[in-house]
Amino acid sequence: MPNPTAAMLVIGDEILSGRTQDSNLHLLSKRLSEVGIDLREARVVPDTEAGISEAVNQLRSRYDHVFTSGGIGPTHDDITSDAIARAFGVALDVREDALQALIAAYPGGRKHLNPERRRMARVPDGAELIANPVSGAPGYTIENVHVMAGVPAVFEAMLGGLLAGLDGGQPVLAKSVRIERPEGEIAKDLGKIARAFPQVSIGSYPYYGDGIPGSNVVVRGTDQASVRQASARVRRLVVPREQ
Amino acid sequence: MPNPTAAMLVIGDEILSGRTQDSNLHLLSKRLSEVGIDLREARVVPDTEAGISEAVNQLRSRYDHVFTSGGIGPTHDDITSDAIARAFGVALDVREDALQALIAAYPGGRKHLNPERRRMARVPDGAELIANPVSGAPGYTIENVHVMAGVPAVFEAMLGGLLAGLDGGQPVLAKSVRIERPEGEIAKDLGKIARAFPQVSIGSYPYYGDGIPGSNVVVRGTDQASVRQASARVRRLVVPREQ
Repeated sequence: MPNPTAAMLVIGDEILSGRTQDSNLHLLSKRLSEVGIDLREARVVPDTEAGISEAVNQLRSRYDHVFTSGGIGPTHDDITSDAIARAFGVALDVREDALQALIAAYPGGRKHLNPERRRMARVPDGAELIANPVSGAPGYTIENVHVMAGVPAVFEAMLGGLLAGLDGGQPVLAKSVRIERPEGEIAKDLGKIARAFPQVSIGSYPYYGDGIPGSNVVVRGTDQASVRQASARVRRLVVPREQ
Repeated sequence: MPNPTAAMLVIGDEILSGRTQDSNLHLLSKRLSEVGIDLREARVVPDTEAGISEAVNQLRSRYDHVFTSGGIGPTHDDITSDAIARAFGVALDVREDALQALIAAYPGGRKHLNPERRRMARVPDGAELIANPVSGAPGYTIENVHVMAGVPAVFEAMLGGLLAGLDGGQPVLAKSVRIERPEGEIAKDLGKIARAFPQVSIGSYPYYGDGIPGSNVVVRGTDQASVRQASARVRRLVVPREQ
């Protein structure tokens, strides 16, 4: 059975304006490889309700899972939940279990719950909470969409709990081979190996070390024997054949 | 006149598999802010011809510019140019000026030009070359799509030359204010300021320093006076008002 598929949706003006470098995509891509969920696409959209809701609807119809990060805080620019409710056509209300999670996280408890913080307890109808062990305010799963925070420490903590409960597939194995020859020199042989092993993916990534061009070749796949055989063939390219 | 709009398309399995953390989006977003081009969306897609070509066609119809990175090297997994030619419905042929750029970059000149390297001189009909001062193999612009390399040093060098020739708009000014209070405490006042200055964007980004929650607030816009006035109002939130 093929592995489940997934997309990521990164929400936030700060990524597109250059203020912040996103790191959640890199974290998610590594974690999903480990549990055997294939990340097929990622998108970054700004904080607009229409843009978020359109992207969510496109992605959730195409992939088994959609993971979002960002836009679920208490401020005026946190509109992800409004957009998710709109995408699914459901109501968005403050929910008691989400409120309890918030109250438990504030030193002052319920008396610190001003209207802005209460916004973080709004959950689209039919969603299930994702625990936030860092700062209280929960994420949630609605159908196949998992809505999480953008702050990297919170995203990571939410993802840990979430992935423990999802069905994965076969973990992807990867072997890297560093070849101190330019890509143009090994491209033909690499192409032959790729054709001989259609069940693995062979990627080639050039680098320039001290001005000398080299290639990092990565063999990836779920079948251990094929990955091993293909990478053994790749390793033979480290030393040029006699001409 | 509003600023021109743009999208980025990052091409490559290595980003989605977790092998590599993309840095080209962050670089592009900073550079475009400086020249007054609004980056509105980014997508990451794997090395498949159909996926790349579909994304290019969606994005080029929506935005004034599309910037791509990745997939224009000599190996079997470098299929961006095939996908671009397919998206535009034009032929893809080795072109003499691109070939000359490659020959000039190789110490061995023309005799190092094997068939795999010649692939890098294939350019979709009607495109204009983007110089690659790092490693020779050029990028190109076809209509409003700018096709560049994925290796960060090459992407940066290509982008520098390209942006010098594009018409930008008004640079976006940004002022950051660090407020050692949790977002939930300042959210109401921040919302008021955002409503009072609809022409600027006010983003709030929580942080946890030594376990104490704080907020970084960023005021962005093209009108200097509004950005200054709005950020002065934000700075008053640094000290809580007397209750």
